[in-house]
Amino acid sequence: MHALVYTDTKKLIYREEKNPKLLNGESIIKVSASGICGSDMHAYHGHDNRRIPPLILGHEVSGVISKGKDIGKKVVLNPLITCGTCNYCKKEKEHLCPKRIILGMNRPIERQGGFAEYVSIPDKNIYELPKNLKMQEAPIAEPCAVALHAVELGENELSLQLKDSKALVIGAGAIGLLCGLILSKVKKCKEIVIIEPNDNRLKESLKYLDADGLKPNSKNIHRDHFDIVFDTVGLEVTRQQAIQSIKPGGIIIHIGLTQPSGNFDFRKTTLQEITFIGTYCYTNRDFEKTLNILNNKEIGALEWIEYRNLKEGASAFKEIHDGKCTSPKIILLI
Amino acid sequence: MHALVYTDTKKLIYREEKNPKLLNGESIIKVSASGICGSDMHAYHGHDNRRIPPLILGHEVSGVISKGKDIGKKVVLNPLITCGTCNYCKKEKEHLCPKRIILGMNRPIERQGGFAEYVSIPDKNIYELPKNLKMQEAPIAEPCAVALHAVELGENELSLQLKDSKALVIGAGAIGLLCGLILSKVKKCKEIVIIEPNDNRLKESLKYLDADGLKPNSKNIHRDHFDIVFDTVGLEVTRQQAIQSIKPGGIIIHIGLTQPSGNFDFRKTTLQEITFIGTYCYTNRDFEKTLNILNNKEIGALEWIEYRNLKEGASAFKEIHDGKCTSPKIILLI
Repeated sequence: MHALVYTDTKKLIYREEKNPKLLNGESIIKVSASGICGSDMHAYHGHDNRRIPPLILGHEVSGVISKGKDIGKKVVLNPLITCGTCNYCKKEKEHLCPKRIILGMNRPIERQGGFAEYVSIPDKNIYELPKNLKMQEAPIAEPCAVALHAVELGENELSLQLKDSKALVIGAGAIGLLCGLILSKVKKCKEIVIIEPNDNRLKESLKYLDADGLKPNSKNIHRDHFDIVFDTVGLEVTRQQAIQSIKPGGIIIHIGLTQPSGNFDFRKTTLQEITFIGTYCYTNRDFEKTLNILNNKEIGALEWIEYRNLKEGASAFKEIHDGKCTSPKIILLI
Repeated sequence: MHALVYTDTKKLIYREEKNPKLLNGESIIKVSASGICGSDMHAYHGHDNRRIPPLILGHEVSGVISKGKDIGKKVVLNPLITCGTCNYCKKEKEHLCPKRIILGMNRPIERQGGFAEYVSIPDKNIYELPKNLKMQEAPIAEPCAVALHAVELGENELSLQLKDSKALVIGAGAIGLLCGLILSKVKKCKEIVIIEPNDNRLKESLKYLDADGLKPNSKNIHRDHFDIVFDTVGLEVTRQQAIQSIKPGGIIIHIGLTQPSGNFDFRKTTLQEITFIGTYCYTNRDFEKTLNILNNKEIGALEWIEYRNLKEGASAFKEIHDGKCTSPKIILLI
């Protein structure tokens, strides 16, 4: 099969690879579309110790079953593969399963990803493509589940309702925009500010999201103002912006993995009883809810997604790396 | 009146000061006992921008009303003075009131503290001394309310019950020991580990607390093991210990203010969905619950408290500073 293989830092090669073998309890999917995620970019930069080259990246995948049960069925994949038997899995907290692995990783266990013609996946991770969701758009289900989980984590913590809350979203990448769209269109939050340094990307996000769009250095980002802040970037500087702008008693949801550690103001956290929660994943239930949200068109048109062919994947990665990409999401078509 | 006045970094003088004046809605208390808190030590070290010398420190206070309503009544003080009208106060979150001030602070507003013969306090902050609580022990109500609030913040977050949780308490000072005692005796938590570098203090705490006592470098502090961690110290290194030892999906409650900022591993926070909550205070309701707990002897004998005379306060501060004090709490008697 053809695949886009991550061979070295900032290097991807479109080449022939062996087809995946059919395993017990799994199916082989003929991939139709596969999205580029921030964590694929993280690997591309050589910063991810769970994704070591050579490796086929990609975990936001839709396609058609080609081997296994239900051959010919149009499907979207939940790429989070879990043991199903540990205490976390039993309590529907699959995202905390110690044996979890995501497609397109090779540490601790190898699972070749979706930037390829074929991919193998356990049957329990396969969902039927919702009727009202286009095959090429369907990979968005995965980051959308991440955003839904993050928004609902925050919702569970808040003492007031999301619709009455002031929300700040840092970053207008896919997770930032999806958090914003879920806050606005699903949770009916009326006061949303989104911060993004890239002018074009900020403008693009505001075509779809009913929010104030600000640059990171704007004087209109008020201190001690927001009930809830979503840091979808995860840099030292964005965490500092999160802690400065959060209200006493407020909630910070931290989704980004860009800069793993850094300095942080614990004094405000303590004196103002701030709750800080990290997240990057979702439960099976979140994934199912997301498919419903997408099927019901609850977050609006997905016209902000850009599409490229898999064979042009390397240039898509480079464009994202160079900051030349306006769209918050590129999906590769196979 | 006589008072112990904080006059400069690491300097306290026992001297004559003006008596407080009776204000509308307030009473004057003839102080009987006044505890030394970690935040008084923080001021003593010159690290607290809310406590600038010259100032009478002290906010853990019991005594007898000498002017105002109910003259002669034995009382214990809630030193957290709040506006009573803001949204936080109205929602019984007085600890987040933006106008809050604690006795023994002079920024933003001056409130002379309890290391003196007399102190003035609003009537709404005065509670009758519980029958079964000795006057000299009563100042412990304040740090006990801090610990109760912290434990119940964690309890509200946990998906399992505290009695079935593995708890780690970092620090065997007053807040650490009180968190441990509340976890063990009030919440019936059966698996508690307490970490303390000072051998004598660790041994002293284990006389009263049913827990395993470990040194900070012990190999028996397991990684990814505890459902809930209480960092009652607040150093960069204790926060690192907290994040290392917490289980996926676990809760870190951060109470200490020792080192306001520092490096932190946000990667684990994010990948393992850790909840980190800062706290140092309590609500009026927490203070009332604490008085009940103390009246019912629920946390056991308070024999771990040491007593000194106010006029020897300066040497007590020095002893705590030098690490020579075994007891987690010194209360000054007037």
